[in-house]
Amino acid sequence: MLIDLSHPIEAEMPVYPGDEPVGLKQCRDLVKDHYVAYYWQTGLHAGTHADAPMHLLAGGGDVLSMPLEHFFAPGVLLENGVDVPEKDIPEGAAVLIDLGAEHLYGAAEYYTDHGCVSRELCDYLMEKKVCLMGVNAPSPDHPPFPIHKALLGVGIPILENLTNLQQLKGRKFTVIALPLAIRAEGSPVRAAAWIQDEDDAE
Amino acid sequence: MLIDLSHPIEAEMPVYPGDEPVGLKQCRDLVKDHYVAYYWQTGLHAGTHADAPMHLLAGGGDVLSMPLEHFFAPGVLLENGVDVPEKDIPEGAAVLIDLGAEHLYGAAEYYTDHGCVSRELCDYLMEKKVCLMGVNAPSPDHPPFPIHKALLGVGIPILENLTNLQQLKGRKFTVIALPLAIRAEGSPVRAAAWIQDEDDAE
Repeated sequence: MLIDLSHPIEAEMPVYPGDEPVGLKQCRDLVKDHYVAYYWQTGLHAGTHADAPMHLLAGGGDVLSMPLEHFFAPGVLLENGVDVPEKDIPEGAAVLIDLGAEHLYGAAEYYTDHGCVSRELCDYLMEKKVCLMGVNAPSPDHPPFPIHKALLGVGIPILENLTNLQQLKGRKFTVIALPLAIRAEGSPVRAAAWIQDEDDAE
Repeated sequence: MLIDLSHPIEAEMPVYPGDEPVGLKQCRDLVKDHYVAYYWQTGLHAGTHADAPMHLLAGGGDVLSMPLEHFFAPGVLLENGVDVPEKDIPEGAAVLIDLGAEHLYGAAEYYTDHGCVSRELCDYLMEKKVCLMGVNAPSPDHPPFPIHKALLGVGIPILENLTNLQQLKGRKFTVIALPLAIRAEGSPVRAAAWIQDEDDAE
């Protein structure tokens, strides 16, 4: 079973304050053109997406330079962004953190009132060589983005604007969130959790 | 291990004849703006992508309406688009077909000289209730797109512009190709093959 962790991509979806708007407009019609086609215009941080080092670091790599294996790995859910977890997390895990903001998605407060990831937790995740960190908020930090810079600096990609994280509570899951093969600083992503054991039990 | 089956997304990448061009332009600068950002403008059939029923069928569903499970399933590689395979393929498989065109990607001939999927093979795949059909060509057929319409009509998504299919020859693999959560007729996709058994052997 797969649990979708992604917000829909649609016309007039929310964007980070100051970013260009998203456009998704029909440009071909089934009756007139014999097929339907839309044209999409977007920044790379609208909706559920991944950040690559190039977004904030001089000389940082683009999305296409990041190993695909970082985006397909056993997952761990952390219930807040402050505390180092009591139970050890496995090295190389894909760590998703509930910053308690996903219910605000679409409201202005989503960008101002979300929780952040503490420097202590960030250091712990780097020590554990996690392959990925994802949050259900627009960012794990605020400008000048110290958590972004620390993680991206050691090649750990960041997923932002995740949703449905509470559905992962108490479950064993694998994160599937391959970014597009794009030569840019970020990528829209369809993020999902694969619940393998419950499949087997069916 | 993951094998990337996707072409890069970049400025001035090839598009289907008659489709709008792709734009990928930097709009924020690390020195001036303290971060790098690109703005992307694209049709939904440039590069490696998925087609949803709405692309060619009246009343057909969009990409977001398609079950995610269609895009994460045990894969089968077929060596041509004409012959029904001698060895039975399992029901529900994600079938990738080598139409012998991926080396032409970037050339005008890519859009005119690719192989197609035969009606006989298409009927066999529908009978086997495959979850997905993917090709290393811009399309499995030519206008008026009978293979597209047959597969999409029974809810089988189509992946187009795949690459590296010969790397799958003789291997057991799982297709991972989740489309974006987009309310449109198609979606760029990062398609990959997960080689599980060789992982285990490592």
